[in-house]
Amino acid sequence: MREAFYGVRRFEEMQRNRGLARNVLAARLRTLVEYRLLDRVPYREPGRRQRFEYRLTDRGRELFPALLALMHWGDRHLPDDDAGPAVVVEHRDCGAPIELGLTCRAGHTGLAPRDVVPSPGPGARLALTNQPP
Amino acid sequence: MREAFYGVRRFEEMQRNRGLARNVLAARLRTLVEYRLLDRVPYREPGRRQRFEYRLTDRGRELFPALLALMHWGDRHLPDDDAGPAVVVEHRDCGAPIELGLTCRAGHTGLAPRDVVPSPGPGARLALTNQPP
Repeated sequence: MREAFYGVRRFEEMQRNRGLARNVLAARLRTLVEYRLLDRVPYREPGRRQRFEYRLTDRGRELFPALLALMHWGDRHLPDDDAGPAVVVEHRDCGAPIELGLTCRAGHTGLAPRDVVPSPGPGARLALTNQPP
Repeated sequence: MREAFYGVRRFEEMQRNRGLARNVLAARLRTLVEYRLLDRVPYREPGRRQRFEYRLTDRGRELFPALLALMHWGDRHLPDDDAGPAVVVEHRDCGAPIELGLTCRAGHTGLAPRDVVPSPGPGARLALTNQPP
């Protein structure tokens, strides 16, 4: 998924970037296509046989905030050393670093985890089916 | 971690809510304490023996945006049925639903994944150590 978010679509390039065995990468891509996070789309370069590339679906693209939140958490709490983040994420138009903010629909921004309250929603019963009655 | 974000701190209550075997829950809590996501803090109720409760560390609390992003993604893309979300998250002060927004440090808000560009950061070399030279 990281490669896909970088804009990498082709098997060969993903394999080069990640240094994975072909069968491992192929299995991962198969899983991501099965979960409909990536689409497998045929393409053909002039004079070569048909190949497939892997494009993010909307469903896959919408995982981006979760991935970014995990990356930021990792940069802050699991630094490899003092080298800094492995990936920087910037606004395409202005180049400023991207942040993930908690806001409420009434327009309050910059909220901290302490400012929010989770509570059981309408589907909560379903999430508790493991419980004894 | 979900229980911790709900404010649940005690083993018995977590066990009741999750319906897990005691040894499974104990092993999970041990792992979360080891990773310093939870603190194990002794307490004693009058007339009872000392027990421990589990409190979010700062490191654990800061996972909240990632958890919320995954929850929102799941509500949208993996609904159990039409029951709605199992958890709703609201602003403590005003009760409005909480959203996670991509913003840039220059003040542009409401960005979509397409508006942001990831690129290798200063620590990128370290992330690529699996690669052939």
